[in-house]
Formats: sequence, structure tokens, C-alpha cells
Amino acid sequence: MYQQNGWNDTIVAPATAQGVSAISVIRLSGSLAFLIMDRLFPAKKISGQNTHTLHVGFLKDGDRVIDEVVVSVFRSPRTYTGEDMAEISCHGSPYIVQQILDACINHGARIAKPGEFTQRAFLNGKLDLTQAEAVADLIASNSAASHKTALNAIRGGFSKKLKELREDMIRFSALNELELDFSQEDIEFADRKQFYSLISELRQTVDQLLSSFKIGNAIRNGVSVAIIGKPNAGKSTLLNTLLNEDRAIVSDIPGTTRDTIEEVINIDGILFRLIDTAGIRKHTSDVIEAAGVERSLEKMKKADLVLFLFDVSDAKDEIARLISELQKEQLNFLPVANKIDQVGELSARKNFSDIEKVIFVSAKAQLHTDILRERMVDAVVEGKLQVEDTVITNARHYHALKQVQQSLSDIRKGLDEKVPGDLLASDIRRCLYYLGEITGQVTNEEQLDYIFSKFCIGK
Amino acid sequence: MYQQNGWNDTIVAPATAQGVSAISVIRLSGSLAFLIMDRLFPAKKISGQNTHTLHVGFLKDGDRVIDEVVVSVFRSPRTYTGEDMAEISCHGSPYIVQQILDACINHGARIAKPGEFTQRAFLNGKLDLTQAEAVADLIASNSAASHKTALNAIRGGFSKKLKELREDMIRFSALNELELDFSQEDIEFADRKQFYSLISELRQTVDQLLSSFKIGNAIRNGVSVAIIGKPNAGKSTLLNTLLNEDRAIVSDIPGTTRDTIEEVINIDGILFRLIDTAGIRKHTSDVIEAAGVERSLEKMKKADLVLFLFDVSDAKDEIARLISELQKEQLNFLPVANKIDQVGELSARKNFSDIEKVIFVSAKAQLHTDILRERMVDAVVEGKLQVEDTVITNARHYHALKQVQQSLSDIRKGLDEKVPGDLLASDIRRCLYYLGEITGQVTNEEQLDYIFSKFCIGK
Repeated sequence: MYQQNGWNDTIVAPATAQGVSAISVIRLSGSLAFLIMDRLFPAKKISGQNTHTLHVGFLKDGDRVIDEVVVSVFRSPRTYTGEDMAEISCHGSPYIVQQILDACINHGARIAKPGEFTQRAFLNGKLDLTQAEAVADLIASNSAASHKTALNAIRGGFSKKLKELREDMIRFSALNELELDFSQEDIEFADRKQFYSLISELRQTVDQLLSSFKIGNAIRNGVSVAIIGKPNAGKSTLLNTLLNEDRAIVSDIPGTTRDTIEEVINIDGILFRLIDTAGIRKHTSDVIEAAGVERSLEKMKKADLVLFLFDVSDAKDEIARLISELQKEQLNFLPVANKIDQVGELSARKNFSDIEKVIFVSAKAQLHTDILRERMVDAVVEGKLQVEDTVITNARHYHALKQVQQSLSDIRKGLDEKVPGDLLASDIRRCLYYLGEITGQVTNEEQLDYIFSKFCIGK
Repeated sequence: MYQQNGWNDTIVAPATAQGVSAISVIRLSGSLAFLIMDRLFPAKKISGQNTHTLHVGFLKDGDRVIDEVVVSVFRSPRTYTGEDMAEISCHGSPYIVQQILDACINHGARIAKPGEFTQRAFLNGKLDLTQAEAVADLIASNSAASHKTALNAIRGGFSKKLKELREDMIRFSALNELELDFSQEDIEFADRKQFYSLISELRQTVDQLLSSFKIGNAIRNGVSVAIIGKPNAGKSTLLNTLLNEDRAIVSDIPGTTRDTIEEVINIDGILFRLIDTAGIRKHTSDVIEAAGVERSLEKMKKADLVLFLFDVSDAKDEIARLISELQKEQLNFLPVANKIDQVGELSARKNFSDIEKVIFVSAKAQLHTDILRERMVDAVVEGKLQVEDTVITNARHYHALKQVQQSLSDIRKGLDEKVPGDLLASDIRRCLYYLGEITGQVTNEEQLDYIFSKFCIGK
């Protein structure tokens, strides 16, 4: 198991959210875990118990009873961290949790740093780095899509494929280094044709993953949406209709609260964050003015998706002009014609027939808002979410893959130009380095500390 | 096991506090608990597993993987509720918790009402009512003393003693009823002497418990303290000194916050709530004015303890007059002479030698504030907390015990006056009824629903 300073110390932390509740769980991991439990839990000798068993009794610090608890025993190596672990399930009082933490510390444990349990799991080879990172994503997941991508990453996901390709690359690298030793003799150990095909396979995988990042990011962080339009276009009504139709919100559990600044809706498992809704609600700041789109461009540019709302009775030429401005700015936008209940859908469609892809709705009468919702999802994932594609969601992976992509280009170019083997070797090493950095096969301590410091305590 | 409408339905609820965290736990109890797990957790047949074992695997709803979880198996009757129970430990995401709850509900469970697990434990005879109520107190405990009294109550506490005395009383009641059947023959089956001694024993226990309620209440809810004194007596400095010296605060766990309206200090495990501290901090409202104590009497009367702070250089006669006014109001107060660093302790003591029990301190120089703290504890518990006395903390118990006390007086009086056996029988039944109500041997459904509705969900 992982050794730090020549021995593995024992860490303890609360693993459940803090607050008054039915139960709280405290997690203990390390070589002293069972010995500490033997002292605190005299009812049964925990160090003598089988793995994956549960034990009920009083937890005591000396003579003082702290609580009646249930202790879970997990013996190394079949544990989350790979080390001996005990989990103490106590009554859900912050006071009692603190007393138990203090008792564990008094008997030789120390408080765990955020993510330290998962960091140990990684260092003991229970998870690779992408899987470890996905644990944090899974905990933070708040929609079907973010949940699915995180779970997929934990279960192996794209890191397995990258690892295989890296193995192949290492083999070629070795052959190439061998050639360097025999450079005088002009022998090629590494089959250039095979190497080309490996590089193109790797390149294809990397390109796919890189292009999935935009969707991945939307899945992970939600899609920011700005609703723009003239003062009476019906922005506020549309906002309310979208919010009211959203029945997928997690609402039955006490303690889940809505973000107060943005409104969030969940369509087909993707979170859309409606930004600047305060402005819409108050009718004070209209993102687009009758005069043009220029003034509020900055705000719109920040959004992943813009809903451009207009009244079907607006002058067609003006709407066409505004849409061409949005196109010029290369914004990801959907033109939405509102109030079709007032003029009739057919005459509305006729009026705007030469503008492409207009969505005709009535926010008030809730006509065709289902179509709008579908189009919002399409505008983000372009139908890609249906496929079981692997998706990357992590900026660290994105930047490492960018480096891999660059080094692959350099290797390819080097092969084409038949550059000397030692120059090729340098590019190959760079490629291997960044591939390994993604999966954690290449690490440095600072980077690890940074990654795990973003975890919650007890994980 | 407890049967409702002819069968026991299966309940589910989150048992840990809500929020993003390392893990969350979901609790499932009832006759379908294991069958539901068999459907959701195909990795292992939970219904075939031994009690008190742990199982790791993927939790699925149909083909959809929800999370990798650890399932704890507790087989009836060795469980909290007495029924078959499973606990699902999942990643601490509110989204995932909701998904798992939904999956359990889809397969036949229903969401538990607050306290319903403990209610079932009570109905299945795992806990008596005082123990069940103590579970809620334990969860809410926030100091060493409140923690200790709740734990004591869970472990049997005073209900055991009351149950024994009730058994004896039932025996006498039966003999007395027998006498009624033979009333013509003037036979005494029930030994009057023994009955007298039982009643006096019961009376003694009840009196002790009733008198413990004041301390019990202070332990459970904290002791409200008002610091009063003239504008320059040093109230604000004393407040800060008391707060800064308090090192027993639970502060290392994120999420524990201080009450923003009152300041709370913990002395020897008892919480003192310093009320109206905003006024002290702002120097705007002085509870006692130079003119006299009349104006702010209402505020002081609300406090469990009053610290009357004065400057050692104040005129002795005026202080004596104010103290006698506080005495007249029968307030629980401590006279505290401040600023002894300015005149010297000896001369200060000399000046106020004919006023009793003055505590001489310097809040600024932190002189003798330890003595003040001791005296604050004494003023509440009068040294009683040292003894392992049983303490009652629950208003429901207090009111029932008052009824028991009254019926005991009536029985005693009846015995003295040799009233007819049927009158005696009525008083005895009343006494038995209220004794039984405390421990839950006599219950009505409404009362139970009320008691358990104050629990948290999942308990």
C-alpha cells in the first residue's frame, strides 16, 4: 500500500454532509484504523472481524460513552482506498461527529485533507486519475447527462482506450530508441507503416475527444442561455413558461435550493442556465434594444445559446436585419417568433417564410414550446448525445489532449520529412508524457495535490 | 412485527443531511426491503445475504446504472426498526439520492414520514417512548450536558425505574380491585402498609424528576443570560472576554454556524445563551439605567440568569439598593464587581464587604473570570450536575409527572381517610395512566403522530 514518509498514517473525516440528520458517517483509513476502533469500540474487537461486516455497539472515549454506533469493517485490499478502513455510522448531530473525530485523533488518526481518501485510492492503484477525477464530477452531478458522463468515466471510459494507444506508442518509442543505438548501420526496427497507422488512430481518438469537450462542458456546467428581444416580445412570459413546464427538478428533498441569480431548467437531462433573468423579471434591462444589438453584445457573447424572441406582428424587414447581425457575430442563436395565438400560426409562418429556421410559439398559450425545447437541446448537442460516445468534461484533460494533438502533428511531420531519430524521439516522449498525464501514469506531486484539493472532505 | 392495515409497507428516506458530500445514505425498512434490493442491485442477491454484511456493486434501475454503492443488510429482528432493513451508501450527490429514492418508490416503497423509522422501532418494542424521544434529543444535542442526558435516556434512564414502580402499582391495583369484589366481607387483600411505602417511594422518584426539569431544560435548551449594568460598567468588555475564553466551541466542521442573534458560550458542557447582545455591542440599549431597574424588568425576567455588572468605584449604597431591588424581584442573579485592576482587589473587597456573594473581576485584565464562570454554572445546576442523577428534559414528561404527583397525593389522602375502594381505584388508574403515558405503555395514535412528526426525515 501507499507509503508516506515510510509508513501510512491513518486519516479520519466526516463523509456525509454536515447538519442535524438521522445519521452521519465518519470514515477512517490507514494502518491504524482497526487498532483505533479496538480502543473506541470495546463491545467487539474490530481488528478480529471479517471484512464487509457491520457491528452495533457503544463508541466510547475511555469511560465516556459518545454514542451508539454501527461500525462497517472493510479490510485491505478490498476497500475504497486499498487500506484498512472503518466507517462509523452515528446519530446525525454535529456535536457527536466532532466528539468522534476528536476521539479518533486522540488515538492516533489525523484529519484527512479534502480528497485524500480518493488520492490514496489512486496512489494504491484502485482508480486511475481520470476515474478519480470523475468521482468529484459524479458527486457534483445534477442532471441525467452530467451523471451519465461522470459514471461512464468512473467505469473506465476513455482512459482505457488512451492507455492502450499509449502502450502501442511506448513499443514504437522503444524500437525507435533502439534504432538510435544502431544509427550508423541505418537499420529500421520500427515499422514506419505501422507507426503511421498508429499515429492516425491516436489522432482520430484525440480529435474525437477534443470535439466532445464543448458538449462535455455543457453537460458538466450547464448551458448558459440568454433570452433577448424587444421590451414587449414576451421574454418574461417565455421564461415563466419554460420554468413551469420543467418537471424534472430535484425538489422533494429538503435542502436542495434553486440558484437565486440564475434560473435553471432541465431539458432531456441537460441543465440550461437562464442568465440575467433578474433583468427580465424586472423589465428594467432589455438585452437587445429596438435600436440594434450592439450595446448588449458582451452579454450575449458570454451565453452558450441565445434565444432571440420577437413578436410575430413585428416588421419582417427589421427582424431579418437583426438576425443577420446575430449571424455576423457568429452567435449560437435560435430565432423564436412569439404570440402566434394572436395572428394565427399559418399567417405568422407566411410572414416570416423567407427567414430560416424560425420557431413559432406562443409562450402565453404554451403552443409549440415543446418544439422550442427540442431545438434548444439540438442547438447544444447536435444530436450527438444519443450516441454512446465518450465525452470529455474536464479542462485539464482538454489541455493535455491539445498537447497530444500537437505532438502527433509534429511526429507525423517528422516522419514525412524523415527527420533524424533523436528529433522524433523527443516528440514521441512529449506525446507519451501528456497521454500519461491524463490517466495519471505520469504525475507530479503538486499537480496531484491541486487536483485532489478540489474534492470535498471525506472523499 | 408492526402491522399497518394488515401488512407492513416498506418505507424509504434519505438518512444523512442533504448536500454535496463524499457519501449519502438512504434507508429502506419493511417487508419488501430485500426484494426491492434484489431488483435494484443485481450484482448480488441481497435477500440471500447474512445479516450485518456489506455488499459493493452497481445500483441499477432496469438497465440504467445509477451509482456504485455499498449496501448494508440488517435482518429482522436485529435492526433499528425491528423490520428487515437495507442501507444504501451512495456518492453524496442530491441528484443521485433522488434517483435512488425514485427507483425504490418505483419498486414498491413509499417515502417515510419524519420519525417513521423510530416510530416503527417503538411500535415493534425496540425502544420505549422516552427512549424514542431521546433519539431526537440526541441528534439535536449540542453540548456535553445535553448529549449526556439524551444518551442516558436512550440507554433506559428514568423510564426503567418508572416502569418498575408502575408494575408494583399494577399489582396493588389488582389486589384493590379484588377487594371490591369481596367488599361485603371486609377483607383486605392489599397490604395497606406496603401500599403506603410504595406510594411514598414513587412520590420521591417523581418529586426528584420534577425538580430536575429546571436543570434538564437548561441543559437541553441552554441557559439564557442577560448582562445588565450602567453604561460604563464594562458589559461589552465582559461579553468579549467570555466569548474569547470559550474554547469548547464546535468549530472545525464546516457548516456549524453561530447563532447570529444570541452569542453562545459553553462552560463545563452547558450552553449559556447571552441574550440581547446586539444592544450591548452597539452601546445603544442599556438594560439597567442609572435611574433604576424598573424599565427593563421584563427583559431580565425572561433570562434564566442575570449578571449584574457594576464598577468597583461606584457608590456602595446605590449598588446595595439596586441589588435589593433585584432580590425583591426574585431574579436569579450574580452581582459582579468589575475593574478591580484599577483600584486593587483588596480595597475593592473592603468597599463591598457587607454585600453578599459579590464576584470581583476585571473583564479587561481577565482577572477572576474563571471564578465567574464557575459561579455561572453553580447558579444553574447548584452542583447537581456532578451527581449521576437522572434528569428530565422533556415538557411532555414534566406535565405527565405533574399528573402522577397529583394522583399520588389523592391516593395517599384516600388511604388516610379510608375512602371506599372504588374511589381509590379511580385514582390508582389515573396514576397508572399517566405513568404509562410517559413510557409509551399507554398511548394514543394522535399523540404518537405528534411526537414523531418533530423528528427529522430518515430517522
